[in-house]
Amino acid sequence: MTVFDEATAVRRTAAGRYEVRPDERFALLAPGGGTPPAVNGGVLIATMLRCVLDSSPHPHPVATSAHFLRVPQTAPARVEVTWLKEGRTAATARASLIQDGKTAVEMTITTGTVPDPAGGRGASLSWTGAPPVLPPIEDCVDLGPWPGAIGPDGAAGYAGQVEMRLDPATTGWRDGEPAGIPEMRGYFRLRDDRDPDAYLLALAVDGMPPVVFGLGAAGWAPTVELTWHMRAVPVPGVLKVAARCRHVSGGWFDEEAEVWDAAGRLVAQSRQIARVGRKGHAEDARAR
Amino acid sequence: MTVFDEATAVRRTAAGRYEVRPDERFALLAPGGGTPPAVNGGVLIATMLRCVLDSSPHPHPVATSAHFLRVPQTAPARVEVTWLKEGRTAATARASLIQDGKTAVEMTITTGTVPDPAGGRGASLSWTGAPPVLPPIEDCVDLGPWPGAIGPDGAAGYAGQVEMRLDPATTGWRDGEPAGIPEMRGYFRLRDDRDPDAYLLALAVDGMPPVVFGLGAAGWAPTVELTWHMRAVPVPGVLKVAARCRHVSGGWFDEEAEVWDAAGRLVAQSRQIARVGRKGHAEDARAR
Repeated sequence: MTVFDEATAVRRTAAGRYEVRPDERFALLAPGGGTPPAVNGGVLIATMLRCVLDSSPHPHPVATSAHFLRVPQTAPARVEVTWLKEGRTAATARASLIQDGKTAVEMTITTGTVPDPAGGRGASLSWTGAPPVLPPIEDCVDLGPWPGAIGPDGAAGYAGQVEMRLDPATTGWRDGEPAGIPEMRGYFRLRDDRDPDAYLLALAVDGMPPVVFGLGAAGWAPTVELTWHMRAVPVPGVLKVAARCRHVSGGWFDEEAEVWDAAGRLVAQSRQIARVGRKGHAEDARAR
Repeated sequence: MTVFDEATAVRRTAAGRYEVRPDERFALLAPGGGTPPAVNGGVLIATMLRCVLDSSPHPHPVATSAHFLRVPQTAPARVEVTWLKEGRTAATARASLIQDGKTAVEMTITTGTVPDPAGGRGASLSWTGAPPVLPPIEDCVDLGPWPGAIGPDGAAGYAGQVEMRLDPATTGWRDGEPAGIPEMRGYFRLRDDRDPDAYLLALAVDGMPPVVFGLGAAGWAPTVELTWHMRAVPVPGVLKVAARCRHVSGGWFDEEAEVWDAAGRLVAQSRQIARVGRKGHAEDARAR
């Protein structure tokens, strides 16, 4: 069992109730410190999706909307799932991650069926925009330790689990020379050998360093809301992720990511709204 | 009082409870017919936002995620609002539109404060992508009656309330010659004289004909989930809306819209996932 599967494991305690535990092995730490470490939002979403899919009449999380209210502790928490509609094409559930009696993450999820390369007939209408252009993986930068990583060499926490190889055109911020464009592009996979699936896509759509690093911003950029769409079942292999921003203003920025699989198919899309980074997430948690 | 303000009016009946009524004056009808008419999703969101903002500690709906479960009847309905977090920078509520004991629309909303041209200091970091390029409004096509409009001349329902003037590059589908690109661009305003605000932005982000009409699709394209972000308070004047799609597959398509105000500022963004059109929405309502 991979660390990712351990970290997102759930245990059903009653109908619609699950015990989970945000896992420090996927935590991020802002440069200024901050206690406790904040677990990556995508890992929390993946964990909650396991609870939802456990009782879903459809196999895929087509639309997942998550609002992040509080930074959960790396301690046991409860997920409650309530089905609001179970239709023939789509079903919708509400899921809440609750700790100390308070909602930390509130999600609404619509499940359905998306194309699977393993089989199934094609739909009548099919169209896709241009894929991202990336240098070959060997010419990309192994991100390694970066602001947000934990431990003396940045190898603990999230950065120790996820391998990102970024297009060098989007990594100037690492050397104090941000490109001036809020974009991140690169290859994405777990350091563990594990094929992508819906849960890993939930991680990939929020997996890149914040796009505003490309504008010179630094520090923890807390996601306030993230919605992602699963568009196809990914084939095995490394994922490509391309993220961009359209607008930074008033302390808010949006980030849109597309995830493409090793066969060149668009498998997931996301958009989030987040706060421009502050010094430490503990400070931010207090401020909100 | 404008028709839009009447159609989105709410009445508080108890703490966190409101009486509303989906209004046939903003209904859409698929070409194949269908009873009852479906009220435009943006109007439903605007109505629910009135309920949320009635008790919000912050003025603006920064992030609104809506999942559409059932087509509400044009009859009285109830909106229930529950606050999950009320923080200094952001507050999050859940809102449900309920009719006949069933949830028709489930929303999660995070409120906060976005820039207002009327005042306030600028934030430290500010950046915006390129705005849409549109011909002058006088060279754009008054959409008038279109598939989805109601009444003998298409002047009843939604099309009777909203004036859309589309870039002719995106209207070939009206003459059976779709451009082959899933994009819609145009100017957007109410036929009533009314300045844009958060509620009208909720309408504008889902206001264009479905982008897949540009690929030759037709018929009602039911929105399954739509999330939109308010990025600034709009100045008075006509809005520009640019919508595009990235992927159509397996019967699903995404649609992303940006809304720019008369001063050339990005004021709202949305993304939705929807089903490719079928013959009539009554048929679809049964199928889901």
